[in-house]
Amino acid sequence: MRPPHTAKRGFFLPLTTGDAGEHSLIERIRERAGAPRRDVVLGIGDDAAVLETVRGRPDVVTTDSLVEGIHFKLEWTPARALGRKAVLVNLSDLAAMGATPRAILLSLCLPSALPLAAFDDLIEGVAAEASAAKCSLVGGNITASPGPLVINVTAIGSAHPRRVLRRSGGKPGDELYVTGTIGAAAAGLEMLLGSPADRVGEHAAACLDRYYIPPSRVSCGRTVAGDRAASACLDLSDGLGDAVRQMAGASGTGASIDAKALPVDEAARAWWTSTGADAISKAVTGGEDYELLFAVPPKRRRAFARALAKAGQVPFTRVGSLTTAKKCVMATGESELELPSGFQHFIVKVQ
Amino acid sequence: MRPPHTAKRGFFLPLTTGDAGEHSLIERIRERAGAPRRDVVLGIGDDAAVLETVRGRPDVVTTDSLVEGIHFKLEWTPARALGRKAVLVNLSDLAAMGATPRAILLSLCLPSALPLAAFDDLIEGVAAEASAAKCSLVGGNITASPGPLVINVTAIGSAHPRRVLRRSGGKPGDELYVTGTIGAAAAGLEMLLGSPADRVGEHAAACLDRYYIPPSRVSCGRTVAGDRAASACLDLSDGLGDAVRQMAGASGTGASIDAKALPVDEAARAWWTSTGADAISKAVTGGEDYELLFAVPPKRRRAFARALAKAGQVPFTRVGSLTTAKKCVMATGESELELPSGFQHFIVKVQ
Repeated sequence: MRPPHTAKRGFFLPLTTGDAGEHSLIERIRERAGAPRRDVVLGIGDDAAVLETVRGRPDVVTTDSLVEGIHFKLEWTPARALGRKAVLVNLSDLAAMGATPRAILLSLCLPSALPLAAFDDLIEGVAAEASAAKCSLVGGNITASPGPLVINVTAIGSAHPRRVLRRSGGKPGDELYVTGTIGAAAAGLEMLLGSPADRVGEHAAACLDRYYIPPSRVSCGRTVAGDRAASACLDLSDGLGDAVRQMAGASGTGASIDAKALPVDEAARAWWTSTGADAISKAVTGGEDYELLFAVPPKRRRAFARALAKAGQVPFTRVGSLTTAKKCVMATGESELELPSGFQHFIVKVQ
Repeated sequence: MRPPHTAKRGFFLPLTTGDAGEHSLIERIRERAGAPRRDVVLGIGDDAAVLETVRGRPDVVTTDSLVEGIHFKLEWTPARALGRKAVLVNLSDLAAMGATPRAILLSLCLPSALPLAAFDDLIEGVAAEASAAKCSLVGGNITASPGPLVINVTAIGSAHPRRVLRRSGGKPGDELYVTGTIGAAAAGLEMLLGSPADRVGEHAAACLDRYYIPPSRVSCGRTVAGDRAASACLDLSDGLGDAVRQMAGASGTGASIDAKALPVDEAARAWWTSTGADAISKAVTGGEDYELLFAVPPKRRRAFARALAKAGQVPFTRVGSLTTAKKCVMATGESELELPSGFQHFIVKVQ
């Protein structure tokens, strides 16, 4: 998967040819969705989908969308990757609650210029990630769009009622851990916004891949929640700085982050070294990491490490603590700064 | 509520001012959403919402969106009405399954030119219809839009597992019934696409109101499903002709509709008489009625009538039957035509 994406040749969307158009697209989705899970009583094709619930387990529901010109450009992004990402960003929200995904709904606003082959690729990406998470694509909606392509996914999961991971459960003294690495997706986005020369080489490939395809931390969130190994959790959609602020705000605590401890992705660090930027600051404010931030009471530290080992040896790093002070700071060794935050998706006119 | 809608003066959306913008909009939504139902374990403000399920009852889930330039124009439509309609079209899908709504998620793509007062009105409309249906607005998502305003709603309900109303359950000989009247929303849309003079008078007001605010048939669908008084059901989003075709197709039957029996709305009939159009053909192909089409086995005819009386004296009309022939026809008295269908939303460039 490498940019730039060149639209494949083929038929264009039949949305302007009456109902038959929409119905035929739904049929293409049904073909690609595969066989549903056994708890899907009724899948694609009726007014609504019907799903068995899990006895004693509440539903956990979230929705998130990718918008052309805000979250992606079609020239950059293979349609299959878009479909995968639209699912993964929603699964990331379920992961942050400790929930197990069961089903997704897909709502599409389609510009008529979208090639049918790109539509098929997009659906295949959606179906592939739904399938990898053992959840079913059970329904959705298709409308035309007079502007951008909009991919809205709703994810439905289940969680143990007393093991839901809220962002508000942190206490002063809890240790803050982040899974995986941070910064590579933001570096990848910078490369896409830059020149073709920026997108050459191994480091670039690693950052771009990470921008296209977020990690899946579903088993990680579920295992930590199941073992009650954390007091709070949040996913990193708008950067570590933003996530720490939100967790501290919801928990009524402050937070202190150790800049030297941050697991900045190596390829991203190399990129920012080459551009002369401050890698720490970039990585803390860069969005779309889709890693998990956990608050862990010190006495659950070992249980937390065991849970992440069980979840498939997911790497994790201690990055700081929640504090009693009502402010969020980053210690750099010499001094203490206010914790940077404030990632914003790029906004371009697409027409 | 009368067109044309003039955007209120006020602040514009703070989406371009960083994270604080999105967070402040979420706060405005939370203020307007009101207190959630008791089965909402966790509502607006975390990575996902948590909802208790109803023991032994499967989830019924659907998603639908309104797109500026496809489903509405902002100049025409009060933002509060848009919010109400975005909820009602989803509740209509739940009604058609015989489900009881529990919660909705709201995903918005917001153009930066949308006045903040219009945003507030939209949210108030969403909250009002959610509240009227005794369901909670539990979460959602906000992104900027480089083009149209997109309002995507996901509705989550519950149904009795053996009383779900599918569209595929019809049998030859079943009688077809439709609730309320058809055609007024399509007539209202024609008036909006026409000249200001078309939108004057009592008939116009009735059609426009119907275009803005679909009926809510939730209790109707639930009662009929609970009493097992119908074999199949579908809501009329793209016209009666389309709904009949879809039900017959899914049920493996044909259908015969009696043109003279159709409950064409009086105001719509007056409009089409004034334009010289064929009211029957217009009403059958016009979309956005959001009434329910039921297939009822002859021996359940009385149970069906009792169920609609219980649901609040909802008016209904027998419009035809499912047949063994594999075609859908409309009898006009003298002759038999192929059943017209094929409503399509208007498509305009919004930029």
